[in-house]
Amino acid sequence: MSNLNQTFLKEFDQEKIALVGFACDENSSYIRGAAAAPPMIREALFGEASNLWSEHGIDLGHTDTFFDAGDFHFNSPQEALSGIETAVSNLLQHEVPVISLGGDHSITFPIIRAFQKKYPELTILQLDAHPDLYYNFKENPLSNASPFARIMEHQLASRLIQIGIRTMNGHQQQQADRYNVTVIEMKDFQGPTNLNLKTPLYISFDIDVLDPAFAPGVSHHEPGGMSTRQALDIIHALDGANIVGADIVEFNPRRDPTGITAMTAAKILKELSAKIIETKS
Amino acid sequence: MSNLNQTFLKEFDQEKIALVGFACDENSSYIRGAAAAPPMIREALFGEASNLWSEHGIDLGHTDTFFDAGDFHFNSPQEALSGIETAVSNLLQHEVPVISLGGDHSITFPIIRAFQKKYPELTILQLDAHPDLYYNFKENPLSNASPFARIMEHQLASRLIQIGIRTMNGHQQQQADRYNVTVIEMKDFQGPTNLNLKTPLYISFDIDVLDPAFAPGVSHHEPGGMSTRQALDIIHALDGANIVGADIVEFNPRRDPTGITAMTAAKILKELSAKIIETKS
Amino acid sequence: MSNLNQTFLKEFDQEKIALVGFACDENSSYIRGAAAAPPMIREALFGEASNLWSEHGIDLGHTDTFFDAGDFHFNSPQEALSGIETAVSNLLQHEVPVISLGGDHSITFPIIRAFQKKYPELTILQLDAHPDLYYNFKENPLSNASPFARIMEHQLASRLIQIGIRTMNGHQQQQADRYNVTVIEMKDFQGPTNLNLKTPLYISFDIDVLDPAFAPGVSHHEPGGMSTRQALDIIHALDGANIVGADIVEFNPRRDPTGITAMTAAKILKELSAKIIETKS
Amino acid sequence: MSNLNQTFLKEFDQEKIALVGFACDENSSYIRGAAAAPPMIREALFGEASNLWSEHGIDLGHTDTFFDAGDFHFNSPQEALSGIETAVSNLLQHEVPVISLGGDHSITFPIIRAFQKKYPELTILQLDAHPDLYYNFKENPLSNASPFARIMEHQLASRLIQIGIRTMNGHQQQQADRYNVTVIEMKDFQGPTNLNLKTPLYISFDIDVLDPAFAPGVSHHEPGGMSTRQALDIIHALDGANIVGADIVEFNPRRDPTGITAMTAAKILKELSAKIIETKS
Amino acid sequence: MSNLNQTFLKEFDQEKIALVGFACDENSSYIRGAAAAPPMIREALFGEASNLWSEHGIDLGHTDTFFDAGDFHFNSPQEALSGIETAVSNLLQHEVPVISLGGDHSITFPIIRAFQKKYPELTILQLDAHPDLYYNFKENPLSNASPFARIMEHQLASRLIQIGIRTMNGHQQQQADRYNVTVIEMKDFQGPTNLNLKTPLYISFDIDVLDPAFAPGVSHHEPGGMSTRQALDIIHALDGANIVGADIVEFNPRRDPTGITAMTAAKILKELSAKIIETKS
Amino acid sequence: MSNLNQTFLKEFDQEKIALVGFACDENSSYIRGAAAAPPMIREALFGEASNLWSEHGIDLGHTDTFFDAGDFHFNSPQEALSGIETAVSNLLQHEVPVISLGGDHSITFPIIRAFQKKYPELTILQLDAHPDLYYNFKENPLSNASPFARIMEHQLASRLIQIGIRTMNGHQQQQADRYNVTVIEMKDFQGPTNLNLKTPLYISFDIDVLDPAFAPGVSHHEPGGMSTRQALDIIHALDGANIVGADIVEFNPRRDPTGITAMTAAKILKELSAKIIETKS
Repeated sequence: MSNLNQTFLKEFDQEKIALVGFACDENSSYIRGAAAAPPMIREALFGEASNLWSEHGIDLGHTDTFFDAGDFHFNSPQEALSGIETAVSNLLQHEVPVISLGGDHSITFPIIRAFQKKYPELTILQLDAHPDLYYNFKENPLSNASPFARIMEHQLASRLIQIGIRTMNGHQQQQADRYNVTVIEMKDFQGPTNLNLKTPLYISFDIDVLDPAFAPGVSHHEPGGMSTRQALDIIHALDGANIVGADIVEFNPRRDPTGITAMTAAKILKELSAKIIETKS
Repeated sequence: MSNLNQTFLKEFDQEKIALVGFACDENSSYIRGAAAAPPMIREALFGEASNLWSEHGIDLGHTDTFFDAGDFHFNSPQEALSGIETAVSNLLQHEVPVISLGGDHSITFPIIRAFQKKYPELTILQLDAHPDLYYNFKENPLSNASPFARIMEHQLASRLIQIGIRTMNGHQQQQADRYNVTVIEMKDFQGPTNLNLKTPLYISFDIDVLDPAFAPGVSHHEPGGMSTRQALDIIHALDGANIVGADIVEFNPRRDPTGITAMTAAKILKELSAKIIETKS
Repeated sequence: MSNLNQTFLKEFDQEKIALVGFACDENSSYIRGAAAAPPMIREALFGEASNLWSEHGIDLGHTDTFFDAGDFHFNSPQEALSGIETAVSNLLQHEVPVISLGGDHSITFPIIRAFQKKYPELTILQLDAHPDLYYNFKENPLSNASPFARIMEHQLASRLIQIGIRTMNGHQQQQADRYNVTVIEMKDFQGPTNLNLKTPLYISFDIDVLDPAFAPGVSHHEPGGMSTRQALDIIHALDGANIVGADIVEFNPRRDPTGITAMTAAKILKELSAKIIETKS
Repeated sequence: MSNLNQTFLKEFDQEKIALVGFACDENSSYIRGAAAAPPMIREALFGEASNLWSEHGIDLGHTDTFFDAGDFHFNSPQEALSGIETAVSNLLQHEVPVISLGGDHSITFPIIRAFQKKYPELTILQLDAHPDLYYNFKENPLSNASPFARIMEHQLASRLIQIGIRTMNGHQQQQADRYNVTVIEMKDFQGPTNLNLKTPLYISFDIDVLDPAFAPGVSHHEPGGMSTRQALDIIHALDGANIVGADIVEFNPRRDPTGITAMTAAKILKELSAKIIETKS
Repeated sequence: MSNLNQTFLKEFDQEKIALVGFACDENSSYIRGAAAAPPMIREALFGEASNLWSEHGIDLGHTDTFFDAGDFHFNSPQEALSGIETAVSNLLQHEVPVISLGGDHSITFPIIRAFQKKYPELTILQLDAHPDLYYNFKENPLSNASPFARIMEHQLASRLIQIGIRTMNGHQQQQADRYNVTVIEMKDFQGPTNLNLKTPLYISFDIDVLDPAFAPGVSHHEPGGMSTRQALDIIHALDGANIVGADIVEFNPRRDPTGITAMTAAKILKELSAKIIETKS
Repeated sequence: MSNLNQTFLKEFDQEKIALVGFACDENSSYIRGAAAAPPMIREALFGEASNLWSEHGIDLGHTDTFFDAGDFHFNSPQEALSGIETAVSNLLQHEVPVISLGGDHSITFPIIRAFQKKYPELTILQLDAHPDLYYNFKENPLSNASPFARIMEHQLASRLIQIGIRTMNGHQQQQADRYNVTVIEMKDFQGPTNLNLKTPLYISFDIDVLDPAFAPGVSHHEPGGMSTRQALDIIHALDGANIVGADIVEFNPRRDPTGITAMTAAKILKELSAKIIETKS
């Protein structure tokens, strides 16, 4: 694991949200590149081209909004597995929601291991083109095709709701049935509905839930997806929820020649953060 | 016409759908490039980045799904005109639906000539930004602006329904009136409706029916088009139809820097094929 | 100001719409490039890849449709301020609607100064991702973040309606309240509604009202925007309005690698022009 | 011809070089787009990303360096033919070198008609991938494949030297022989040599003389071309020459997604202008 | 193997060069896409944007120049191995040089198996960034990292000369030593020299021998490569050689957004073909 | 400054080279984006598409080659100024060469402050399109246009040699004269020569020394630059030098749609690292 000299440690100081990047893509089943996403998202959100007010009037531009723990690199998938869990656990000790920037979707398994210890009754809302429920894909049980298989078989979440799926196959349908996953496929999606998400809620936002027109910068282009506005509507509709954490994963800067995916990931981060603050206050 | 040595002939063996590519773009009225589409679509569908299950649970990944007749090149528009008709006629002898990958839209005229001999009462459902009903465009009556003028004046189809049109002009409106074409312009499009498509149905899918946001890789960018999801909804709604053939045309790989149009054409091919199998079984 | 020799002056000859380009982007608060837009839009509309019939059957391909006054360059923001106003005033003397092609949004302030003299009771319909109501942004009160602050504080318009906004912040909300601006934010947008736009109407169309998926070629990517079809629906719904002028601004050709934004700006220009002609006749 | 109101005429005031743009590409034999080049080149040279010192220490950032006559649009090839000649003739009356920005290469014929009247013994140095000596190409004798056939058959130049050619065919070789053209093909090019260019010299710089790696933004990609440094070496070596005019043509912004061709055209303009000033003083 | 109906067989008729495409990329060790190359190269060479005269005055635009055998698709690496060998063997029976368009570099092994039967004393000139001499790479001995290991260990060539290499490592250096390969690394390359290539000569041209600036459209970007002009110089210098065959491989259209790699591959094909004709006559 | 929890500190363990990233671009005078470079360079070098052998046979793929200190983010230019100096000073305590990945060129000033304390007689070899010697640019004395003005006026280096410069102006020439800078402008560059670089040597590699054809992914496109091969030749020629540190700066991933600049930066890092190891052993 790469790291920085302890001389530079900044103290956590009552910020409302912890932010952390995991520069991991070694578990990507198809092409790599997502490891470079975190600094691109940060720059899109905090750089000169953006403002920090959400669409519902929350101003994130205060010094006490984000505690940014920086980006983690790891030398192996094994190191990543334990390192991500430890990093998230440490941040959760500050009693703040933790938003993780991927990296590929494989990071969600160790993240949820950390969350489960603090929140044994976790509900996960996954926005994604793919179920990511493979028992084993290309001989890598830790790949980005399997995190929710791992999470559900270890009973790390009480309930899993998937929205935006459009690549369900026979095996993954079996897995969804086995683990009682609520799946709202894209072909049936009609906009946000009352999902009654009252328990501690974790949101796993895979950028490829969006149609490639809106987010070309992903490793897997799966046409027929959501518009960015539809995704924002879902976030805005989470009114009564107690959101304790989130991740934004699978943005791949290598496939984003015009930069619109970076801006879109930053917008999702902004609106998610605002919704977290709104529901806390 | 280019071809392969007869040594390599594979026998048709009870596959459910015949697939064939026509690498033609000499009749393109504006820019060329569509000739290179078939191998890009094949790779997007059958390559490593895809799975072969449709959104309604049909698995196309069986060896008896597709008989792939390969790609045809021609040395002149005249050779193409007869060669395409012959190739499709030969494939139709196997009593399977034939899906053709273009190439530009000019290929649909010789394709329908072949279909008409087998199916004298054909209904054509055309998804397209343009009516393609010009009597004569730039002195080329065989150009990709005129296939449906040729088809209708030769009475090769009983009925033509166009969806997604957004470039109707005076001359083409006259042609549409003359041939009693049902035109659902994009400005009036409200989603799939009961079109009562009971006779043998042929689907001609011009990729430019989609908005250029979803499919930049076309020769003519015509903004204001359908989303990919809207196009999929139309395909999924073809429940009672007897689909006997289809084409997917006008994908131009030269204008597809991020590759999303290739994936979108492949998705259309997958869902169309699944719908064909679903309605046959 | 750059200009051409008076030898080449073409006389205004009863054309129905005056067209003029302002190649200005020195007031862009973020990145430049919009100055190169006018010839790209012209070529997209009048070039070989387009036809000149609108979606509602108006044929713009007559010699008496457009009086094209060419493109203006200026040597300084001050020169632009007076030069744009003079140019538009001169064109308005011909008693025709004037459509201006930007350039960045800063051109709208001097344009409206010219319009106000002729139309003291002007209503402005602004389609935009941003309110552009900053009192002062980066120490430049003439920047493209402030034109509507200038317009409203000088009482150059009776009413301002904004559609598509998705970056409202505290300061701009105060400005909107102060000047009684009607704001339909994107999060609340439900399609065209009866806005009762009866007075002389000016339309300011900022291309970034569209989602970056539909229009990547803008200086500010603000995800969550309108589809091109939704924007066209608004234009088509302006039935009783007396449209006296319009601008199409902020197209930045440097960020449009596939050319779809140029085509989209040209489509907006075509449909706006057709609607003007339709409502005049 | 489009133009501007005479109110805005700026007087010529002892500037050293006249600059003018011709937004023409209707004579392009393959694809269009070059008409949009002039504002892109201007912005690349005079915009924020550039400085105005040449590599040999000439500072072009003085107000008396350029008289910019703006950009001309024309409504037909015929109008362009006479309009370009008139515009250049007018500028030449000020006794300054005139640099024209294309547009496609067809503009060089009317430009040289204007020059020939003032300079009957003109030498032309053409940097180009193509000889552009077709007697007639695609039935358009005014196309961008033929300007030097027209120039030489009308004896508008005493001598024509071509450097960088790599598409010579039989017909064009005959034409080159007939008109005694000195051709240095790219396969034989060894860098600048003593060409003894003493008479009044005109330089016609077709951007496609550069390899597409250095200048992807051209209508015809012809691999195997010059590096930008080799082109600059030729310009820098023109020490004793009396340069009376130049054009920079065939930059096509539609094919320049990263913007490097615009910057390269601007660099050529800068170094050419500096060399003109250097040889005059 | 995909193929065409025997109805369409064209007879070989004294053409001078046989051309065939192998749409294979399943053996690519990194990313796929090269399978779509053959139609892109054909269109770049024979399409409207090109002429068919070589730089040394050979006109390839005669009907008796190329016998085009079309493109072959295969259903598995095993089928490809035998299918490619058979196809090339059949073409070689016509006593003409055979030029194969890849596909990835794995196709060269079965191609050379066919050549070796006809030419037991073959010299191979390989232009490449990589030695492709891995004994076994990622558990696939038939991958595109190993064809020359297979060729040399089966003694299918008498001599192998590699030019342009810039990724030699310890293992591959051992392999090069074992098989007595002449390696001219890019760091030592000084232009074409007398390589004394008198025996029957086969040229294997991997597009990635060029620097990615000249050929971005390859699966492996290896900076520090040749310019296109340097590669052309090598081809032009093959004066006394008896060239009996060639391949052009590893062009990947997915990574070629501006299309310059397609044009460059076409140029290599043109100049190689002209050199073959030149040395035969 | 962002940082990581001290729990994750890895001990320095006799690695030969220290690597550190500085995600800074707030001092960029034109456009931002360079902050996202470090993870892109790391992935290009250590990812699946690369091997770790240098062109001269040094294998960097050993665990004791690099100590990677990760990437640093800062909250303000002031924090960056002290943070970078501290980070580099700490790494230099391990008595290894330190290679820093930018970020923009402003990072070199604080880096050299750290080096100067350890190496009072430092020679700097700067490869760059720009002198970066502005006394003050756009009112920011710490901008990326001024680092070498700061370095020389504080006498942090004994000697500065610049290669590849092609934007020298009057002011910067004065600065170069004042500080006795050796400038080899690109127009005079003839390849590596004996520069007699015997004292401790620091190499500052600005990616824009390369022509934009080879490295489009930089904030400032300055045509007429070096080829990648020429840059590699310079590195390879540093035979007797004692290289104690280096930086690679100004790679801007936002402008690198095909990814070739990332690969080129990685290649420079690889060859520089190998040369360091080679000269140490």
